[in-house]
Amino acid sequence: MTEPSKTPQPLHEAELTTLGTRAFQGLGLPLADAQDVARVLVMADLFGLSTHGLSRVESYGERLLLKGIKAEPHITVERVAPAMVRVDGDNGVGPVVGMRSLNAAMEVARECGVGIAFARGSNHFGPISPYSLIAAEAGFASIIGSNATTTIAPWGGSDARLGNSPIGFGVPNPGGQPFLLDMAMSVVARAKIRNAFKRGESIPDTWATDKEGRATTDPKAALDGFLQPVGGHKGYGLALLVDLFAGLLSNAAYLTHVKSWVDAPDEPQNLGHFFILIDTQRLGSNQWLAERMNDFAAILHDSPPVDADKPVLVPGQIELAKMERQRREGVVLDPAVLALLYKYAAVAP
Amino acid sequence: MTEPSKTPQPLHEAELTTLGTRAFQGLGLPLADAQDVARVLVMADLFGLSTHGLSRVESYGERLLLKGIKAEPHITVERVAPAMVRVDGDNGVGPVVGMRSLNAAMEVARECGVGIAFARGSNHFGPISPYSLIAAEAGFASIIGSNATTTIAPWGGSDARLGNSPIGFGVPNPGGQPFLLDMAMSVVARAKIRNAFKRGESIPDTWATDKEGRATTDPKAALDGFLQPVGGHKGYGLALLVDLFAGLLSNAAYLTHVKSWVDAPDEPQNLGHFFILIDTQRLGSNQWLAERMNDFAAILHDSPPVDADKPVLVPGQIELAKMERQRREGVVLDPAVLALLYKYAAVAP
Repeated sequence: MTEPSKTPQPLHEAELTTLGTRAFQGLGLPLADAQDVARVLVMADLFGLSTHGLSRVESYGERLLLKGIKAEPHITVERVAPAMVRVDGDNGVGPVVGMRSLNAAMEVARECGVGIAFARGSNHFGPISPYSLIAAEAGFASIIGSNATTTIAPWGGSDARLGNSPIGFGVPNPGGQPFLLDMAMSVVARAKIRNAFKRGESIPDTWATDKEGRATTDPKAALDGFLQPVGGHKGYGLALLVDLFAGLLSNAAYLTHVKSWVDAPDEPQNLGHFFILIDTQRLGSNQWLAERMNDFAAILHDSPPVDADKPVLVPGQIELAKMERQRREGVVLDPAVLALLYKYAAVAP
Repeated sequence: MTEPSKTPQPLHEAELTTLGTRAFQGLGLPLADAQDVARVLVMADLFGLSTHGLSRVESYGERLLLKGIKAEPHITVERVAPAMVRVDGDNGVGPVVGMRSLNAAMEVARECGVGIAFARGSNHFGPISPYSLIAAEAGFASIIGSNATTTIAPWGGSDARLGNSPIGFGVPNPGGQPFLLDMAMSVVARAKIRNAFKRGESIPDTWATDKEGRATTDPKAALDGFLQPVGGHKGYGLALLVDLFAGLLSNAAYLTHVKSWVDAPDEPQNLGHFFILIDTQRLGSNQWLAERMNDFAAILHDSPPVDADKPVLVPGQIELAKMERQRREGVVLDPAVLALLYKYAAVAP
């Protein structure tokens, strides 16, 4: 593959997938694993989640080159009960471990109605919505979570002891769009605070605390401090429960035992995930489900909007619309990301 | 049973359970069902959740007398897959349907590692934490949810189309206290707004909207309007996903199809619940789990508090401490609730 001109051109899904696959092969991954990583990250880009898309080739690549992540892990999948599997990712690339776990959970859920996979020995696995969509397209409702590097102080505490652990939900709709919700527990992402700082603006006091754990409107103090969880003690509790399921029960690291990939890129993080899959085909026909899902969405869409220009949306609607458009028109990647992808792809076998 | 003196005296758990059981027998429930209701509601009182405790004898009783809830439902439990059961509550009292579903889910989870029960044809089933605690004491981690009467506007919408649907999580600790999280999706309960109104105080603009769906600091306007979900669109999304699992997938009513028990106490609500149970014994020994759970709590408790008088807490800690104290000292019930319990108990067979 040769690098095209420097002017950013949209690339189509198939091109991105081939490029992403080649790049991760260039970083040492076997073909099937590189395909899994590309599939998840390209879906993230299609959803418009570019911070969790192919741009991750930078951090994943750095850690692969430093041997902080294994390019050829020996992943084990153990079925410890009819509907339960444990996955040891052996410090493989996150989406490789994620896809292996998702597939194992779908397999036992197809047999048992519900299935759960607990994964340990993993790394950042991309956003959750690609997994939820793959599950929904196969007829599964899902609850999926991961833990993360510590960036949040306990509620009422004053140092970072828990991660901004994301949880995602999906419900299939055989007659239209699924519902997909992929949420982290902070009120806003750190990038929003960084942008306010650059513009010299103050921030709402609900976004973050200073380094002593006190609410602040100063973006500089907030950047030295901690993100605030949604709903105060509620988001704090929810972030902990995600870590208990994803980290503690899976036998992965949790809370401060999770190493920072920024501070220690060459060390295993031992992140954990959980995947709960529910086979909706056991509950009713496709027609039954489609009718109910479309009715559910219609009830919400029919609520008179507060602002006439902003109709009511349902979870996943923005991302799925963006995916549809970008599947037609292609995705414009950041030129630096594109250059890095071509660089790694150039050394693929 | 005769009514004691009018001065409120603390009653012990066993006395409350007997009284609650007799009261619901007086309302026409079979003994075993009345015991289930009393067990759940007394646990709520022990936790300090008095709005969801035996005080519910008022609304449950009113609806039972109006035949809006069936005292002797024909509940069916159908195992539709090895790890999945569907429960039709036949419009029975909520905690009766809830306990039947919880037990069925624990049974299949013991066999399969994970189990799920979907319940329809139900009613308000009390708070979630009693179910989570019963599950945790039997070694199960849990995710449990219910839908509810509509009180929240869709994000950006201007009429009540979704309920303040609660979700609860529990993780057992064989060597100490389990983690229990039981949360509704609103920033605050309506009662807090009512109290601000009584005191003539304004409220933060994140608590509620006026009846046009606009954020307000006026408690009067807020009482005519809608509760705001935690984290704005995040809480909105989470409340919807709880309803999708608890209502839509369970074949119960959902969103505006849920009838209000206040406006139509004589009509079935057809509420739905879901219970996901995970057998932690499949994941490791009791010692393994106890060590990890105690370490997890210690990491959080060791965070230096922002306010020296307010040490960091973990989810469920307040409720479990209150339960321990009230198991020793007894619970003081509201005299009007106590009078109603004695009234119904007096006609028990």
